Amino acid sequence: MFRKWERCKVFRDPIHTYIRVEDPLILDLIDSKEVQRLRRIRQLSGVSMVFQTAEHSRFTHALGAYEVARLVLEQVEGIEVLTEYEQMVLKCAALLHDIGHGPYSHAFEQVLKISHEEMTCRMILSPKTQVHRILHRYEPSLAEDIASVIAHQGKFPLIESLVSSQLDVDRMDYLTRDAYFTGATYGTIDIPRILRSMKIIDGKLVYRASGVHTIESYLMSRYHMYYQVYFHPVARAYELLLESIYKRIYDLSEQKVPLNASISSFMNVISNQEDVMSYIDLDDAYVNGFIKQLTHSEDEILCKLANSFENRKLFSYVDLANHPDPVWLDSLKKKYAESDGARYFYYEITVSQAAYLEMNGEENLKIKILLPNGEIRQLNEYSAIVNNFTELGYKKLSRVYYFDESEI
Amino acid sequence: MFRKWERCKVFRDPIHTYIRVEDPLILDLIDSKEVQRLRRIRQLSGVSMVFQTAEHSRFTHALGAYEVARLVLEQVEGIEVLTEYEQMVLKCAALLHDIGHGPYSHAFEQVLKISHEEMTCRMILSPKTQVHRILHRYEPSLAEDIASVIAHQGKFPLIESLVSSQLDVDRMDYLTRDAYFTGATYGTIDIPRILRSMKIIDGKLVYRASGVHTIESYLMSRYHMYYQVYFHPVARAYELLLESIYKRIYDLSEQKVPLNASISSFMNVISNQEDVMSYIDLDDAYVNGFIKQLTHSEDEILCKLANSFENRKLFSYVDLANHPDPVWLDSLKKKYAESDGARYFYYEITVSQAAYLEMNGEENLKIKILLPNGEIRQLNEYSAIVNNFTELGYKKLSRVYYFDESEI
Amino acid sequence: MFRKWERCKVFRDPIHTYIRVEDPLILDLIDSKEVQRLRRIRQLSGVSMVFQTAEHSRFTHALGAYEVARLVLEQVEGIEVLTEYEQMVLKCAALLHDIGHGPYSHAFEQVLKISHEEMTCRMILSPKTQVHRILHRYEPSLAEDIASVIAHQGKFPLIESLVSSQLDVDRMDYLTRDAYFTGATYGTIDIPRILRSMKIIDGKLVYRASGVHTIESYLMSRYHMYYQVYFHPVARAYELLLESIYKRIYDLSEQKVPLNASISSFMNVISNQEDVMSYIDLDDAYVNGFIKQLTHSEDEILCKLANSFENRKLFSYVDLANHPDPVWLDSLKKKYAESDGARYFYYEITVSQAAYLEMNGEENLKIKILLPNGEIRQLNEYSAIVNNFTELGYKKLSRVYYFDESEI
Amino acid sequence: MFRKWERCKVFRDPIHTYIRVEDPLILDLIDSKEVQRLRRIRQLSGVSMVFQTAEHSRFTHALGAYEVARLVLEQVEGIEVLTEYEQMVLKCAALLHDIGHGPYSHAFEQVLKISHEEMTCRMILSPKTQVHRILHRYEPSLAEDIASVIAHQGKFPLIESLVSSQLDVDRMDYLTRDAYFTGATYGTIDIPRILRSMKIIDGKLVYRASGVHTIESYLMSRYHMYYQVYFHPVARAYELLLESIYKRIYDLSEQKVPLNASISSFMNVISNQEDVMSYIDLDDAYVNGFIKQLTHSEDEILCKLANSFENRKLFSYVDLANHPDPVWLDSLKKKYAESDGARYFYYEITVSQAAYLEMNGEENLKIKILLPNGEIRQLNEYSAIVNNFTELGYKKLSRVYYFDESEI
Repeated sequence: MFRKWERCKVFRDPIHTYIRVEDPLILDLIDSKEVQRLRRIRQLSGVSMVFQTAEHSRFTHALGAYEVARLVLEQVEGIEVLTEYEQMVLKCAALLHDIGHGPYSHAFEQVLKISHEEMTCRMILSPKTQVHRILHRYEPSLAEDIASVIAHQGKFPLIESLVSSQLDVDRMDYLTRDAYFTGATYGTIDIPRILRSMKIIDGKLVYRASGVHTIESYLMSRYHMYYQVYFHPVARAYELLLESIYKRIYDLSEQKVPLNASISSFMNVISNQEDVMSYIDLDDAYVNGFIKQLTHSEDEILCKLANSFENRKLFSYVDLANHPDPVWLDSLKKKYAESDGARYFYYEITVSQAAYLEMNGEENLKIKILLPNGEIRQLNEYSAIVNNFTELGYKKLSRVYYFDESEI
Repeated sequence: MFRKWERCKVFRDPIHTYIRVEDPLILDLIDSKEVQRLRRIRQLSGVSMVFQTAEHSRFTHALGAYEVARLVLEQVEGIEVLTEYEQMVLKCAALLHDIGHGPYSHAFEQVLKISHEEMTCRMILSPKTQVHRILHRYEPSLAEDIASVIAHQGKFPLIESLVSSQLDVDRMDYLTRDAYFTGATYGTIDIPRILRSMKIIDGKLVYRASGVHTIESYLMSRYHMYYQVYFHPVARAYELLLESIYKRIYDLSEQKVPLNASISSFMNVISNQEDVMSYIDLDDAYVNGFIKQLTHSEDEILCKLANSFENRKLFSYVDLANHPDPVWLDSLKKKYAESDGARYFYYEITVSQAAYLEMNGEENLKIKILLPNGEIRQLNEYSAIVNNFTELGYKKLSRVYYFDESEI
Repeated sequence: MFRKWERCKVFRDPIHTYIRVEDPLILDLIDSKEVQRLRRIRQLSGVSMVFQTAEHSRFTHALGAYEVARLVLEQVEGIEVLTEYEQMVLKCAALLHDIGHGPYSHAFEQVLKISHEEMTCRMILSPKTQVHRILHRYEPSLAEDIASVIAHQGKFPLIESLVSSQLDVDRMDYLTRDAYFTGATYGTIDIPRILRSMKIIDGKLVYRASGVHTIESYLMSRYHMYYQVYFHPVARAYELLLESIYKRIYDLSEQKVPLNASISSFMNVISNQEDVMSYIDLDDAYVNGFIKQLTHSEDEILCKLANSFENRKLFSYVDLANHPDPVWLDSLKKKYAESDGARYFYYEITVSQAAYLEMNGEENLKIKILLPNGEIRQLNEYSAIVNNFTELGYKKLSRVYYFDESEI
Repeated sequence: MFRKWERCKVFRDPIHTYIRVEDPLILDLIDSKEVQRLRRIRQLSGVSMVFQTAEHSRFTHALGAYEVARLVLEQVEGIEVLTEYEQMVLKCAALLHDIGHGPYSHAFEQVLKISHEEMTCRMILSPKTQVHRILHRYEPSLAEDIASVIAHQGKFPLIESLVSSQLDVDRMDYLTRDAYFTGATYGTIDIPRILRSMKIIDGKLVYRASGVHTIESYLMSRYHMYYQVYFHPVARAYELLLESIYKRIYDLSEQKVPLNASISSFMNVISNQEDVMSYIDLDDAYVNGFIKQLTHSEDEILCKLANSFENRKLFSYVDLANHPDPVWLDSLKKKYAESDGARYFYYEITVSQAAYLEMNGEENLKIKILLPNGEIRQLNEYSAIVNNFTELGYKKLSRVYYFDESEI
């Protein structure tokens, strides 16, 4: 059905040694404008303000997620239940799952009110994108089927559980990769062992009980990556500053205030979420570029925010768990409540991540354990460690971020 | 007080890159007969039957534990409360803490009814050993003080907490080392981060709250090393076989049955635990050597056991958690109960290890957390993850080991 | 003379585990605008087109070079001949040595006719830069002395040999770092071993003969990094495209043709190399930004080049060592010779790197070997391997790069 | 022809992550007495006296060499020219190639005048060994064909070039493994890259020109491993002591002097090289065991040697390249010349290893390079670096080893 090369092409990669590409279709997708754009969007946005080496792009992760999918197809017992077509859906979904991310994506989603998953689907389905046209050329049904996997529509439950569940090709790559590029040691995941403990039974993904310790380790690693890296207060401060900038631009655009900056694609997207082609223009360089211009903005607030961004003058923050003086905190709140800029200069946020939670609903996204006697159990029923993780529930961190008095 | 070299001597080491020796005393101890003997005793006894590369000796771990102690003295904030003399006690205790191990130590202790810690102290205190004489030559009080640390006599509480507590230079080295040599990935411990989060306050060891995730990871790693490596059923089967051999020899010696094997040092130790010099003769080669001779023993049981050992014909086992057929299990028990060899050919064992337990008693062996506001808390009060570990208590594994019917 | 913190600040780093900052001065420099700017300039420019994970910035390398300098001061025998002041000069020089790099630096230097070293010195010496003001505040003579080290003026020969010679803190960091981030394995350098073999005798840096194998390995690694990574034909194609863009902008500016792009800082630098403040504006984002704008340029050549850059439509190339058909090659040359665009669309280049060459001149930049008997020899006199490297001389690669027919 | 399992068995391994066993035949061979015996023979004999962590056994290397052979069969382009039967010959030959090694093999070969390769062949061909019987059971012709590969008889030239040439599965495993276990960093070999550059053309193994840098690195690594590790003067001193012990035993046996030690298997082998079954008894433990007994030998020389071994009282040595005082050297030589013990207490040795030498003769053992145009060249014709290695020829180290005056 799909042509393969006799000798695969390779990309050198420090995580998987090689990314091996066997299919011309996959290489065409990699070369597409939409996937190449991911080179210009950092995987971890503001994290590199704290872990300065975390400068890797979403592109390298897209290749990595694809490679883990390829390894799944090569090594997992029982995976041959997937047809050749379905195998291609899996590989493409792994490669493309993040193309909908915008620059400094988290902040972006807050303002745009559209998730990157939705945007990924739009880009795959839009006949204007290169990715769509490539997929269509190889096989007309591919684009829709890949989008259905990313949107969790249930048409390919096994593929969905491989691409985005509690333990999937996406997470296996990004936790390992983010650990490698930050220098954090807690992100070590035993991918070869996990692949070996995976098995497909009756079209469903299960993990052998003998590999449960690897999953426990993985959950602990993930938990620590969230609290030590992804939720790092300084990284969040950076993203909040971006959110404020995006918000201010949005608000000014609502008020029809001109901006004096080369920012038309961004404005197009704000006014029309369907404008996929403008969306594709947006990347880190684009945003960095217009913020630099906005340092001379006539709008006082935007000028202040843009200059803060340029000079790494981030929000200050207090961790509420450290019980800051309530009087001081109250006066802080009050001052901002009265200020015009509260919307841009003051945030109360709570982040939370569970070490493991058994989600309700979609059964195929849960981690299932295969006992030696053939029974299948939910992970948290089998592992006491994981069960206790679920009892811990979400660990919440509440922080107040604000601009220093002298700043407003 | 103690002479140092201008340029330290080094031993290359894959875990710490270099073991750096700055003190002539330390090098003399390393060269002593008792420390050199550790080259001939494997760190993990029977584990190499399962993880074939786990062939490293206790010698390499002794050097490693010493090196971590040296790093503690070099890097930990507040460690300068230790006098030069106490620093030497710490380094020596780290280096010498395991010299009392016998070959296949676990099995050995079962029969000999003496712990390796006690034996370590005896060897340090006995005027016959080289180690003792070296220590005495440099400073008469050293031997006694080092032994007091190993015996937890409370004279040097800070040094004791550094040498053997829930998180000490011993564990930091052996978990990392054992992971490296087995190829297990779950033993990754962030030693530089742990050292950086350590602090000495009022003569006590505490860990900064900002480093708690590293300790959580460490506890998880330790837990997995126990269940995946140290308690591996095949490794235990191997050690039980040794225990049976040791027991049979012991029993025969009680009955004054001659053995026709070159085994006098071993017999000396059995009949007189104080015979340190004979004890020093015992190492893996020694035991392997006489077992080879015992394959021709006239005693039927010993002959059978020795041949099993030589031919890797290990005990069979069932894991009781897998609910084996109770009828079959009963008949198995019954058969052995009636057999002469039950004592040597049948074991019911339970191993257990907690991810973390807050021990009663010795306060200085607990892990204490220093909050940003200066308060000090018990680890499990501070970390919800660790607190749940303590609630899990001991994870127990119960197994029955037995010789196959055809064997008896 | 310089205040130190009791407890150093750290930056996590995958190469050196931690970057340890002990001096307020160093942290102030790291926080300066000029050093922070290096976050926005990739260390390897176009190399990430081939090794997609090579996305690390010059900032991470600046920290790394500083850290190696710090390790030198901590570990190298005899280094205490440097005064406290000189030690600070060394650390600052290591940290700042690359601040003069522009975006896509190699291409930039071709057009600007000013080396990044010169620019580094200007930035250190200019009273307008933050770096200069910080240095001046701590100690008035620092800026000049650091610049003198970078310019090899011979005032601090030992520091010069540590900062930039055949084997220095700069190279030790970047070869290791570039290997880590590309995933290349040939860049492995045994930094701890090299540090241990270094010794300062009579104010001069030598290497003990026992460590020569490490230097041989280092030279081989460096050689392979050049040919496999730095000189990779596709990476060079990318840089040549940038060179063409820079050149065209330069040429148009000479002809006073307006550009319709936000590019004033770049133009300022072109017209006045002394304009340090405009230079500081230039970074990868800046260049990427204006190239994106130039895709709509009215100048046909610039429009074509900018679009090629945006769409990764790189130059084609032939390696002359592969003996391409001379008739075809001649007609290619001829066609471009007659074309207007030859200057922008056709390159004949030769790159070359020696595994090791004994430079004439500056004695302190050569690698010297200390024999066991105290004699000091040139590296190539001592090592037969290295001597043969010098006999090989430069390995030259000659390539022709050109735009595909269909492109012009 | 050969049955395979659906799901392979695995051995965890730090070098290759997993050793994957797909064939019942291979697992039977691994379980055989002759392969298991390799667990009791250290890969690097006396090297662990210097690199204390180099305690790994020949068993782990045998598995590793097998795994590299398996990877060759899985990944190398064109390898499908090998029939299923030949593929099995390759895997078995890789696994079994070292079973003929004795304890402290190098010293042993000196006395026994039989190479370990010959002994390997004997063990494979002898109907008494388990290995032979297993092979015969699966396929009667296997044993002979495997032995023919090991003896380089030319029947399977491609397999021979994969199993033992200048760059083969044996070397790829042991250099990497020895580096890992010593902690040496110079043994890094890019196995995945080498496998990818391998290709089978017309039944012959070639390497693509694009991978030549990997081979150059490999040769440099090998060269450094020889001089830094394998030829380390202290490791050699240890092996010479063993050689002296073996020699003295041999000499006494010639004179029919009884030894008062349990040493019959050793004596059997000395008197009859064909005695494969006695040979199998010999391992490190066996030798260590009888040397311990010989510390009480009545033969003065043997007693002295055995005690030296036990107490690590190794030969002193001088490196002739360091130009020791010729008068002193002469008097040393003279004294030993007149002494009875010269044969045991004095050695003049020269070791040598070339970085690369183009052997005459067997064409299939040379490294061949495939140019992009399809031409095939000798490695040293293609690579200037390697060509210079060949011009360097053998690097020779000459040393005199002797017992200290006070010792004789």
